[in-house]
Amino acid sequence: MDNPVLAEVTRGGIVESRHRGAVAVVDADGALVLSLGDIERPVFPRSAVKALQALPLLESGAADRFGLTPAEIALAVSSHSGEERHAETALGMLRKAGRDASCLECGAHRPMGEAAARLLDREGRKPTALNNNCSGKHAGFICFACGTGEDTKGYVGADHPVQRAVRGALEEVTGAAHTQALSGIDGCSIPTYAVPLKALALGFARFGTGHGLGPQRAAAARRIREAVAENPFMVAGTGRFDTRFMERFGQRAFVKTGAEGVYCGTLPELGYGIALKCDDGAGRATEVAMAALIERLLPADADATDAFAPFREVVLSNWNGIEVGRVRAAEAVRG
Amino acid sequence: MDNPVLAEVTRGGIVESRHRGAVAVVDADGALVLSLGDIERPVFPRSAVKALQALPLLESGAADRFGLTPAEIALAVSSHSGEERHAETALGMLRKAGRDASCLECGAHRPMGEAAARLLDREGRKPTALNNNCSGKHAGFICFACGTGEDTKGYVGADHPVQRAVRGALEEVTGAAHTQALSGIDGCSIPTYAVPLKALALGFARFGTGHGLGPQRAAAARRIREAVAENPFMVAGTGRFDTRFMERFGQRAFVKTGAEGVYCGTLPELGYGIALKCDDGAGRATEVAMAALIERLLPADADATDAFAPFREVVLSNWNGIEVGRVRAAEAVRG
Repeated sequence: MDNPVLAEVTRGGIVESRHRGAVAVVDADGALVLSLGDIERPVFPRSAVKALQALPLLESGAADRFGLTPAEIALAVSSHSGEERHAETALGMLRKAGRDASCLECGAHRPMGEAAARLLDREGRKPTALNNNCSGKHAGFICFACGTGEDTKGYVGADHPVQRAVRGALEEVTGAAHTQALSGIDGCSIPTYAVPLKALALGFARFGTGHGLGPQRAAAARRIREAVAENPFMVAGTGRFDTRFMERFGQRAFVKTGAEGVYCGTLPELGYGIALKCDDGAGRATEVAMAALIERLLPADADATDAFAPFREVVLSNWNGIEVGRVRAAEAVRG
Repeated sequence: MDNPVLAEVTRGGIVESRHRGAVAVVDADGALVLSLGDIERPVFPRSAVKALQALPLLESGAADRFGLTPAEIALAVSSHSGEERHAETALGMLRKAGRDASCLECGAHRPMGEAAARLLDREGRKPTALNNNCSGKHAGFICFACGTGEDTKGYVGADHPVQRAVRGALEEVTGAAHTQALSGIDGCSIPTYAVPLKALALGFARFGTGHGLGPQRAAAARRIREAVAENPFMVAGTGRFDTRFMERFGQRAFVKTGAEGVYCGTLPELGYGIALKCDDGAGRATEVAMAALIERLLPADADATDAFAPFREVVLSNWNGIEVGRVRAAEAVRG
C-alpha cells in the first residue's frame, strides 16, 4: 500500500514536491479515530517519544529528589536549539545531581539554532555536549541514574539500567514490544526501537489522559504536560514549530517532533493520541501536516478561527524576499 | 501512477525513510533508454539546467568578447558553495564586462558551504550577492547582456532579452514548450519552467553529443562540458557531490544538481541524457540515485571497479561518530 500525500510544496501555482506518509489517531482505549496509510509498519520514533522516555525520571522520585523545576522537566523532553538558556538549564540539572557536563554521553554538535551556532562562532567557542539538542534528555537520564543509585557510566547502552527503565516505560505505554531486531542507534547514541504508528498514537493517548496508566505514571505524565505547556521555549527554541505551537495552544495540544519525519502528540481534551511519519523524513512536511490534523480534530477556539493559519501553510520566499511558493498540508490530512 | 522508491535511508538494519521519484534516460534521437515512474509530468528543473541556460552566453560570442576563461564558464553553470574562489571568480567575470556586484539581481544569502559561511562570520563580514550560489550564472547573464548591447537592468525578468534568450535555448534544446502557465520564480528570481523529465533528458543527450543542435550551439555545449570537466570545483565546491563526481569521472559524466530533488546529466560516450526528480525534493536521495544510475549505464573503468562506491551509498554517523545507518540507491535504480 502506498501512503497518501500528507504535504505539498507549491511553486508558481503548481505542485513542485510531494511528501507521503502515514498518520494514526487513536483514543486511550486504542480505538482508531483516523488512519491514513500504513500505520502497522514499524517506524523509529526518534525524539518524538522523549516525553515517554522521561517518565521514569519522574516516577522514580529522582526529579523531586533533585528538585527539578518545570523548566528543567520540559528540557528533559526537548530537542532544543542549543541556545544559551537551554545549555545553562541542562548544566543546572546535572549540578543538582552533583555532576557536570563531562558525564554526558550524547556527543557535541553545533547548536541546531542558527543564531545560537553563529553566536558560538563569533565568541570563538566550540560547541559542547550541552549544546546537543538532546542534552536535556541526557541530563534527565543522569538525574534518574543518580537518583536511583546507578552508576551513570555507559548510560546510553541498551543494557544499562537507565535504558532498560526507558524501554520498559515505552513498552508499557505503547503496548508494543521493543525488540533488538527492530532497534537502531539514535543520533545521541541511545537505542531507538521501531514500533507501529498505531502503538505510538496509543501511547500518546494514554500520556495525554492517564487512562490505562497506573496512578504514579499518570501523575508523571500530567506533570510533564504541564511543565512543557508552561515552558514551550525549553522543548524546542526560538522560532521553532513546537515552541510556537504550544505557546499558542498551551495544554490543549502537546506536540513533539522527531528526526526523519516523525511527529507525536496528544489532544488531552479529546483523549486522542497522534503519531505521524513522513516516509521521506522531511520535517517541513510533518509540521504543516500535524497542524492541519490538529485543526481538523480540535474544536475551534471561539476567539480565533484562524489560529492554525501560520502553522498549516508556510510561505516560501526567495533571496530577494519574493514569495515563490508554499508548503501546505495536503487534502488527505485536511479532510 | 506512484513513482518507485529511488533511495532508502537505513538505520540499524531496517529502512527508516524512503524517497520516491522518476527517472528518464534518453538518447539524442529521443529514444527512451530507461524510464522509471512518471516522466511526462512537468517538473521545475531549477538549477539542474544551468548548463543549458549558459548556451546563449557562448553562442552570442559574449564569452569570447570578454575573454571568459574555462573556470569562469564553469562558474556560469554552477550552484557554488559561496567560497572565496567562487565569489572572486564571479566578481572577475563582472569586471571583464565593466561591471561590479551592484548589478547582480540574485539577492544575497549565506554561503551554501558551511566552512565559507563560518569564515564570513568569524571575519564579521556580511554575505553579498557574490556569495549567492547562483552568482556565477548571474555574472554570465550580465556578460551576455553587456556583450549583446542590452541594458542589464531587470535582467531577471521573464520578458528581458536575457531571459528570452535563455528560454529560447531551453525550448529548442529540450523540445518542450516553456509556458507562463507552468512557470515559477526561482530562488535567484529568474523564471523557471516546468517541463517533463523526458524532455530534460533529451536536452542533456543533445548537450552531451551535439546531435540535433546547430554547429554553433554544439560547439558551445562542448566548451561548457570541457570547462566543467577541467574545473569541477567551480561548479559546486569543497566536498560537494558534483565536484567530487566530476573530479573522478571527468568528461565521461556531466552531472548537475538542482533544488527540490532534480538532477540532470549526460554520458557523452553513450550519447545519453539523464533527468531525475525525487518527488519530495531531497538532495540526499538524488545524489545516490544518480550515482547508481550512472554506474548501471556507464561501462566500468578497467582500473577501478569500485569507483562508484563512495557515491552510491553514504554512511550516516551520529554525534559520537558511530555508524547508525546509510543512504543508498534503491533496487529500482540499481537495476
